[in-house]
Amino acid sequence: MIEERRVTDWWSTAVSEIRPGRITLRGYPVEQLIGRVTFAEQIWLMLRGELPSPGQGRLLEAALVAAVDHGPQAPSIAAARMAATCGVGLNNAVATGTGLLGDVHGGAGQQCMEVLERVAGGEEARAVVADFRARRAYVPGFGHRFHPRDPRRDPLLALVHEAVERGEVPGRALAAGLALEAALSDGRSRPVPMNIDGATAIIYAELGFPPELGRGLFVLSRSVGILAHAWEETEGGARIKGPLPRPLLAGYHGPPERDLPPKR
Amino acid sequence: MIEERRVTDWWSTAVSEIRPGRITLRGYPVEQLIGRVTFAEQIWLMLRGELPSPGQGRLLEAALVAAVDHGPQAPSIAAARMAATCGVGLNNAVATGTGLLGDVHGGAGQQCMEVLERVAGGEEARAVVADFRARRAYVPGFGHRFHPRDPRRDPLLALVHEAVERGEVPGRALAAGLALEAALSDGRSRPVPMNIDGATAIIYAELGFPPELGRGLFVLSRSVGILAHAWEETEGGARIKGPLPRPLLAGYHGPPERDLPPKR
Amino acid sequence: MIEERRVTDWWSTAVSEIRPGRITLRGYPVEQLIGRVTFAEQIWLMLRGELPSPGQGRLLEAALVAAVDHGPQAPSIAAARMAATCGVGLNNAVATGTGLLGDVHGGAGQQCMEVLERVAGGEEARAVVADFRARRAYVPGFGHRFHPRDPRRDPLLALVHEAVERGEVPGRALAAGLALEAALSDGRSRPVPMNIDGATAIIYAELGFPPELGRGLFVLSRSVGILAHAWEETEGGARIKGPLPRPLLAGYHGPPERDLPPKR
Amino acid sequence: MIEERRVTDWWSTAVSEIRPGRITLRGYPVEQLIGRVTFAEQIWLMLRGELPSPGQGRLLEAALVAAVDHGPQAPSIAAARMAATCGVGLNNAVATGTGLLGDVHGGAGQQCMEVLERVAGGEEARAVVADFRARRAYVPGFGHRFHPRDPRRDPLLALVHEAVERGEVPGRALAAGLALEAALSDGRSRPVPMNIDGATAIIYAELGFPPELGRGLFVLSRSVGILAHAWEETEGGARIKGPLPRPLLAGYHGPPERDLPPKR
Repeated sequence: MIEERRVTDWWSTAVSEIRPGRITLRGYPVEQLIGRVTFAEQIWLMLRGELPSPGQGRLLEAALVAAVDHGPQAPSIAAARMAATCGVGLNNAVATGTGLLGDVHGGAGQQCMEVLERVAGGEEARAVVADFRARRAYVPGFGHRFHPRDPRRDPLLALVHEAVERGEVPGRALAAGLALEAALSDGRSRPVPMNIDGATAIIYAELGFPPELGRGLFVLSRSVGILAHAWEETEGGARIKGPLPRPLLAGYHGPPERDLPPKR
Repeated sequence: MIEERRVTDWWSTAVSEIRPGRITLRGYPVEQLIGRVTFAEQIWLMLRGELPSPGQGRLLEAALVAAVDHGPQAPSIAAARMAATCGVGLNNAVATGTGLLGDVHGGAGQQCMEVLERVAGGEEARAVVADFRARRAYVPGFGHRFHPRDPRRDPLLALVHEAVERGEVPGRALAAGLALEAALSDGRSRPVPMNIDGATAIIYAELGFPPELGRGLFVLSRSVGILAHAWEETEGGARIKGPLPRPLLAGYHGPPERDLPPKR
Repeated sequence: MIEERRVTDWWSTAVSEIRPGRITLRGYPVEQLIGRVTFAEQIWLMLRGELPSPGQGRLLEAALVAAVDHGPQAPSIAAARMAATCGVGLNNAVATGTGLLGDVHGGAGQQCMEVLERVAGGEEARAVVADFRARRAYVPGFGHRFHPRDPRRDPLLALVHEAVERGEVPGRALAAGLALEAALSDGRSRPVPMNIDGATAIIYAELGFPPELGRGLFVLSRSVGILAHAWEETEGGARIKGPLPRPLLAGYHGPPERDLPPKR
Repeated sequence: MIEERRVTDWWSTAVSEIRPGRITLRGYPVEQLIGRVTFAEQIWLMLRGELPSPGQGRLLEAALVAAVDHGPQAPSIAAARMAATCGVGLNNAVATGTGLLGDVHGGAGQQCMEVLERVAGGEEARAVVADFRARRAYVPGFGHRFHPRDPRRDPLLALVHEAVERGEVPGRALAAGLALEAALSDGRSRPVPMNIDGATAIIYAELGFPPELGRGLFVLSRSVGILAHAWEETEGGARIKGPLPRPLLAGYHGPPERDLPPKR
């Protein structure tokens, strides 16, 4: 005989309580949340334990809206589209895409938040930039291989500026991000402006999210684009879609054809 | 030499267009969407190609809010929590959870939408119920193994009623759902009320989503709970969390210990 | 207080027993298996509960060897290669690939086994072929979009023939497969020979595996190719590999650029 | 117009070449491999580009056989079993399990190989052990939370010893592993013997595999157990299996039930 609590405690949570006829999320009965909080506020509540202020909710909402998609060039989107043609559920297609949002493909926002934490002014910003350059690494959240200037930067930063002015967020991460941007462009003919990862990192940091949840929130946002693309492929009816259209075949650069040694 | 278009067409999409310095989503420049549409409206836009009316957006928002979590009993949540202790990224923990929202665990809403399409009144409802009972199957979207009455039913249906009264949605799926509920409870001492899958199926059907996207929208919604639970486990710092607390070991009902035949 | 057994029974298994210092697989102490059974025999033992005869083990081994890879055209391989460039573990890259071996991409062997069960001679074979043709569907396991004649067919069938002659397998599925092949080619100028899915389906059926495990065994086999390709991509050091080389961008066929309605 | 080669080169591989009617794996026509190489040898060929010697093949085979399963306590196995009850394909159940073999749950072998590379004798071994102890970390590949002595250690090391004596492998990693084991147990009443990760790390290192492929090979091996467990659950017919048997519910330690602020 064991105590029941040893087993139920193993799976204990502070997120939600489920009893017969009763569901509370972070203490709030679900029936009170329905119709009264936005989806973005619900996301905040579930991750943070308390509801955001209206201003915080709007800022989170803008960041979630901004990052939903960046087209089928992205391996996460391409993989989800291919999955949708392989005879798996739409949930598996979405899972395929989010599974690819790893440290390299989906981690820049999180890494940028970690950098922002280290920067309080121009001096630290210049030191950080020098450090990354010495390691021949990109500063996460800045520059973009497609966009000379990421079109999502300005509207997101404008919203942060307004929130700072209204006293809704402290403005520390914004200052750090701008200092990094200045340090990166200093003495360069071509500036290296913040990208979507940098701009949303500032928002998530201003809102008090830990860096790891920066990745988490990006996953929620990009899942929308992943689903939209997977669904488009589902509707198109393709079967077993590979990366290349027929009759193109993948190249080969391995050993020339050879015979197996006779003795085997 | 091949035509470039043959290759770029293979990955062509109507969801988004990415050019240097330019991102449009369903034709709208992303910088116009940021700060002006809600996350729920953005989801609608990405999946449907046009923006919803404010009333449609609110109804979608309520459905997304309602289904975020149902606790660690659910295998999707439990698997995501375990994943978070295995040394994979938070994105992989989320993907683990959504990957489990298959036909049985995540498909009831989609299946309910398919049933709703077949019901125009009480007669069809009774026929559908008789058909499922003859096959000893549950009607998807009705009844719940934990809840005598799912607490999410009433507030969701109330919002649909209001939207019907305002002329924002046609009310056809609502009528079908209520007819099914009545047919299921007819002559029973214990009613079989709609559950979350049934109530959200009505909303998604009223809003004109195809059944498969019912699953897709549920995936987006439940991803929030999956992320919240995975993050809670991450913060807790457990390593290689299995389903049972130590010192409990899984039972065994296979053959007793035996020796390998000597000749092998 | 609950009985401990209620909890440990929930996770009870006949596959393996783990006690301190003791691991038995299907009853055999693991230390007796190591060095004495082949990997293919171990696979059989784990799935079936008993060890195969040497002849059965060799036939299983040949089928596993045959299906390891079919190049990066396959979405499973392409997705795994892309995953390997996204900053996830090699295990996640493999999981991405196997996740795509769904009903359409990885299910033909399983479906072929189901068809083989229905065929006892030429008459049923002709009826099955007529049935699929009436539905404008391919008979799973026959024909190939790349290969006029799948080079894996002949060596696999030769091994089955030998095993039938030696009395190691009954030969029923082989007869069914050949009858289907004959029925498919009857009256056609171009034959529709068995492909890898058909040839391995015959082997798995001759060995007594249920159809669903046909997919399972294919997953084990193809995981080898998935891993080899993911590893090649890892070694190559690419980052965020999409489906198209730069500067190619995915095409777009959605609505032209437009402004958001002003009131929103 | 673009050159075709730019596109096909993007997906070029040295693993396999697929042309109409022709499949070569690392240069060998697939029809020559079928029936003539073991599954373990095929795995080696695909990962390394050349066939192993018979002795190398046997050692690889033993390592693959040894690690197939460690029961449903493991989150990878438990998650795969739960997935099998959720209405996804058997391939998705396997992918769920392998997806959990991350840095913490599946990475010990890889990490042990990295440690083995740093150890040439007793002095380095003692330094490594002191280093890990100073960081309060376990040396990967040594000790086990269930087993005082892992029953897979002795038979695996015996095979390595024999291979060293026959001159089939150099013996360097074996010496390093034994030196680490001695250093770990030095001055302790309870020894800290090598576990499965340590013993297979020695084998993979002796065979010349890079550490990352240590994880890859473990994934191939454990996939067998994952499949066996998922299949057992499939056959059992459970639906939506959670971690706890009914009527047990997960515990809750969050805020007590509360009302939403009225203004929202």
